[in-house]
Amino acid sequence: MTVQVPFFDTDAMGIVHHANYVRYLELARVRLLEEHQRPYTDWLELGLHFAVTRVEVDYHRAARFDDRVAVSAWVRWVRGASLAIGYVLICQGETLVTGTTEHACVDDDGRPRRIPKELRAEMAALAAE
Amino acid sequence: MTVQVPFFDTDAMGIVHHANYVRYLELARVRLLEEHQRPYTDWLELGLHFAVTRVEVDYHRAARFDDRVAVSAWVRWVRGASLAIGYVLICQGETLVTGTTEHACVDDDGRPRRIPKELRAEMAALAAE
Amino acid sequence: MTVQVPFFDTDAMGIVHHANYVRYLELARVRLLEEHQRPYTDWLELGLHFAVTRVEVDYHRAARFDDRVAVSAWVRWVRGASLAIGYVLICQGETLVTGTTEHACVDDDGRPRRIPKELRAEMAALAAE
Amino acid sequence: MTVQVPFFDTDAMGIVHHANYVRYLELARVRLLEEHQRPYTDWLELGLHFAVTRVEVDYHRAARFDDRVAVSAWVRWVRGASLAIGYVLICQGETLVTGTTEHACVDDDGRPRRIPKELRAEMAALAAE
Repeated sequence: MTVQVPFFDTDAMGIVHHANYVRYLELARVRLLEEHQRPYTDWLELGLHFAVTRVEVDYHRAARFDDRVAVSAWVRWVRGASLAIGYVLICQGETLVTGTTEHACVDDDGRPRRIPKELRAEMAALAAE
Repeated sequence: MTVQVPFFDTDAMGIVHHANYVRYLELARVRLLEEHQRPYTDWLELGLHFAVTRVEVDYHRAARFDDRVAVSAWVRWVRGASLAIGYVLICQGETLVTGTTEHACVDDDGRPRRIPKELRAEMAALAAE
Repeated sequence: MTVQVPFFDTDAMGIVHHANYVRYLELARVRLLEEHQRPYTDWLELGLHFAVTRVEVDYHRAARFDDRVAVSAWVRWVRGASLAIGYVLICQGETLVTGTTEHACVDDDGRPRRIPKELRAEMAALAAE
Repeated sequence: MTVQVPFFDTDAMGIVHHANYVRYLELARVRLLEEHQRPYTDWLELGLHFAVTRVEVDYHRAARFDDRVAVSAWVRWVRGASLAIGYVLICQGETLVTGTTEHACVDDDGRPRRIPKELRAEMAALAAE
């Protein structure tokens, strides 16, 4: 997916504020599920959420207003009740940002839950690609 | 209350992005209730919310990173199921922003509800000040 | 243009936080220029900015995570050094939000500037549509 | 410093959205400099910025609207042109979030610069505490 950098995501250094990339990762994660597994709204209907347990982001170059940033996401690993997604953000052939998020599967009350077998198999298939 | 402008609220023009002032209004509104009526969490425990139905903001001057902005809020009017709050934001003696928000009292499902008599009286007393 | 509501734009009421719609207006405004006049980056290269002087938003219905919200924008009026844009946000045939923003044309130092004749003519042509 | 969680920082899970903690880290970092070294605006006047090169955040527990979250920050290490800050966020005796940010010292054009000797000594003194 591509993010066309909104003006409101820039800061007084003239570049995208570092916290906003964490949001771009979320956009790419939601799109990954939607296109390659099932919409995140399907998980929500099952009363399941991917609570974020860890975020790691490395910033290599800055993006500016109106830049077109390609955000790629992939499943790094899946376990019984958790998973990790990897990301790379590229603009005009240059790597801007790389990152990883880790998630726990939780229910509507925030309690850890095992990922249902069928969904875990789908995610594992994505991880194997 | 005073907002010390965070760097993440600035944009590539070097000033606070206009959308962020709408958040400052919310901070001042929550503080107004907390200090002069009752914490907004008390309203939430009653299953009541102030859904925002209208926002009007006039921008006179810009604030920059680290500016100390004094945000004042007051009750403009209260009706059976709605109310309005007024705001002025001042920095170093200059008016930066003025605004008004209007709110409908709604329940947890977003349905309009009358403001309970006692709370309405408290808000009306604030409006009369 | 269409906004697919990101999870990070929702709040604890389960709906898009009202301040975030002000950002959607900006996205639509930038797209309006890009598609019907010239990219906002062209204005920036001329050292010109549309400083926001007033925002008015009316909230009719709430959007939720993953909703597809169509955001339309049009030029309401153009004067020598200012202009206004109108907006309507629609989801599944229902009007969610209507709004207007007013802007002053300013230079890199934030000083008011007349809109260059040619650009004003282009904007006026858009307003006449 | 203490953050009183704003409503606008919550998401549809009813908790603070994970990206917003990255902003709390920035607030604590700016406060750390202001109280223990010199205001970040002093660095900016020297034409120096702390560009963020890496963010690591571990999420242990969630915060909710109106929670008072104590955010502590400290200097982990200082090198010639970079430094790292550590963070812990605590609410009601429970650790919510821990994190580290790494920064490169850059000039107004984003080019790496050595941290001036005197400032580096001040930061090193903080790191030794």
